[in-house]
Amino acid sequence: MAMLRAAKHAMRSLGSTAPEAAPFSRMLHASPGSKKIVGVFYKANEYASLNPKFVGCVEGSLGIRDWLESQGHQYIVTDDKEGPNCELEKHIHDMHVLITTPFHPAYVTAERIKRAKNLQLLLTAGIGSDHIDLKAAAESGLTVAEVTGSNVVSVAEDELMRILILVRNFVPGYLQVIKGDWNVAGIAYRAYDLEGKTVGTVGAGRIGKLLLQRLKPFNCNLLYHDRIKIEPALENEIGAKFEEDLDAMLPKCDIIVINTPLTEKTRGMFNKERIGKLKKGVLIVNNARGAIMDTQAVADACSSGHIAGYSGDVWNPQPAPKDHPWRYMPNQAMTPHISGTTIDGQLRYAAGVKDMLDCYFKGQEFPAQNYIVKEGKLASQYL
Amino acid sequence: MAMLRAAKHAMRSLGSTAPEAAPFSRMLHASPGSKKIVGVFYKANEYASLNPKFVGCVEGSLGIRDWLESQGHQYIVTDDKEGPNCELEKHIHDMHVLITTPFHPAYVTAERIKRAKNLQLLLTAGIGSDHIDLKAAAESGLTVAEVTGSNVVSVAEDELMRILILVRNFVPGYLQVIKGDWNVAGIAYRAYDLEGKTVGTVGAGRIGKLLLQRLKPFNCNLLYHDRIKIEPALENEIGAKFEEDLDAMLPKCDIIVINTPLTEKTRGMFNKERIGKLKKGVLIVNNARGAIMDTQAVADACSSGHIAGYSGDVWNPQPAPKDHPWRYMPNQAMTPHISGTTIDGQLRYAAGVKDMLDCYFKGQEFPAQNYIVKEGKLASQYL
Repeated sequence: MAMLRAAKHAMRSLGSTAPEAAPFSRMLHASPGSKKIVGVFYKANEYASLNPKFVGCVEGSLGIRDWLESQGHQYIVTDDKEGPNCELEKHIHDMHVLITTPFHPAYVTAERIKRAKNLQLLLTAGIGSDHIDLKAAAESGLTVAEVTGSNVVSVAEDELMRILILVRNFVPGYLQVIKGDWNVAGIAYRAYDLEGKTVGTVGAGRIGKLLLQRLKPFNCNLLYHDRIKIEPALENEIGAKFEEDLDAMLPKCDIIVINTPLTEKTRGMFNKERIGKLKKGVLIVNNARGAIMDTQAVADACSSGHIAGYSGDVWNPQPAPKDHPWRYMPNQAMTPHISGTTIDGQLRYAAGVKDMLDCYFKGQEFPAQNYIVKEGKLASQYL
Repeated sequence: MAMLRAAKHAMRSLGSTAPEAAPFSRMLHASPGSKKIVGVFYKANEYASLNPKFVGCVEGSLGIRDWLESQGHQYIVTDDKEGPNCELEKHIHDMHVLITTPFHPAYVTAERIKRAKNLQLLLTAGIGSDHIDLKAAAESGLTVAEVTGSNVVSVAEDELMRILILVRNFVPGYLQVIKGDWNVAGIAYRAYDLEGKTVGTVGAGRIGKLLLQRLKPFNCNLLYHDRIKIEPALENEIGAKFEEDLDAMLPKCDIIVINTPLTEKTRGMFNKERIGKLKKGVLIVNNARGAIMDTQAVADACSSGHIAGYSGDVWNPQPAPKDHPWRYMPNQAMTPHISGTTIDGQLRYAAGVKDMLDCYFKGQEFPAQNYIVKEGKLASQYL
């Protein structure tokens, strides 16, 4: 496989004496020798020791430290990713591989890419690589890959939980309990069954399909919008209806779930105007990306009651600042970015990262569906 | 249909001049003439006017006031049900029908039944009549009936929500958001996928079956214990395994859901000893009845971590007092009793109560599955 950055890097290095210089080979992922691999994960502190399977944190380091070091590679792991003096900045100039996650995203800007002269590979431990400037990465010849499929079940399950939390008005009930109250009416006046409601998903890729399958026994009216139709057999099994025109689908929905990646097309897609056309009292679940929504427009619509409930685990930016309006808007059921980082999900994406590193060291291809940027080209869902 | 209390009452009244006296007839539900019907519901106050479909509260009065009064009946509705001076007590001596709900239960004791000399019919708006002393009701010749099926979907959906809330560790995530925090690790270290876990339901009646059907696409290992096996076709469709021996099933479960009525056999069923035999880290969902659990044993096991999460909407007693230990135990996701009183559920059980009152006035049978006590006998699930 050709790797433009490796090629460019190798050609740049031909005349230098830098130890990482290597002869250009179109067949090699990595140039030979010791690599410097940097991982940016969330820190677990006191939680790290509570579960031996907790590999997704700084302390767990994806469980690949011994394996990497036994092969002579250097493995730096940190959660310190912001500002000119952060730990990540110290390694930008000489790292070969950067592993990041959507849960505690290290924003890989064009400027950082420019300074990362040895960088060849950007791996996302999880799914969703929009914290990386993909255009800059493509232009610079980098390979970007994620562990496609690693946590799609985790996210789909979490979406169904959030649908039910909003439909059933769970949060005010829980808050009554911990405050010592008991007021059934204050919950029941806006609690509904999911059965019989119209649920539409914006995007029916891997996660959207899994969600629709899990919704099937709830006897809802299921709609989906995507660039491409679901294969007929599966569509028939699920009983979901394809809606070619997004803006025709949205006003039909009692519940809208966002299952589309963040791209230049989807950024700010749910602005004031589009939200204004939704059914009054609509419920929205968004575990995709916070920037797909206009932050203030969502907060305003929750305050006015036009949106009757909003739940998700994605924010813009992340971590969400203390004054983020979604923390304080009414009828929200938000969490930090957690849906894809269950213990089961962590074990799968840690294994996927290890497999890709192994391919990289051996000059082998990654699984085709994992590539986000390959040979200067973006994967189709990011176009 | 014979109604012992109507008969006894009529015979008692034969020599009296009481206006409610009526000739005895085995064919009549109600003696002719105006009836005094009392309903005990939760009060909605400021929430009453927010939703025209909110019929389950005192203010909504099941939406049957005009219908009852147009036929010359008296309809008293209150939420005031406790103590010697409460509103309910004023009507005990001369009411003919008492409508109660599990959400704000009026406890119908043997002593109250003894004083309710005109009482013929006890209707539960919803499902679950254990707030009534059923033995005393049977001995006294009363008919007890509920709106079987009215909110089984509501409860089953809510159970699946609670399973996911516990498995995914939702509540600590939400609390971080409203407190201005962001600590993914503090949630993720004990968040899991539902996929692949073993879920067992104690009871697979109407609600248990609906839950199992909704769990099917989650690819769990599904177990159930009941007095009777699910019909083979449905069992095969769901893929759940029958466990004849409860205590053999329970230690296999990662997640246990309680779907059995409160009876003398199930009261206190989950005591310290039985909880001690469960898998360490088990999650428990109980929307059935609080008294099936030993309150303190659950609180202690949540504190020790033996139970890793407990969620439900039923308490003993209800409303739960401010110092109920389940309000303060770790890893709880409790709410007041709401799962069966969604707006959709309310509309169904209000319609069911109206239908039964209509049958009662006309001397017709109720739907067979609605009877809890009929002609001095308890329905099979309460034996």
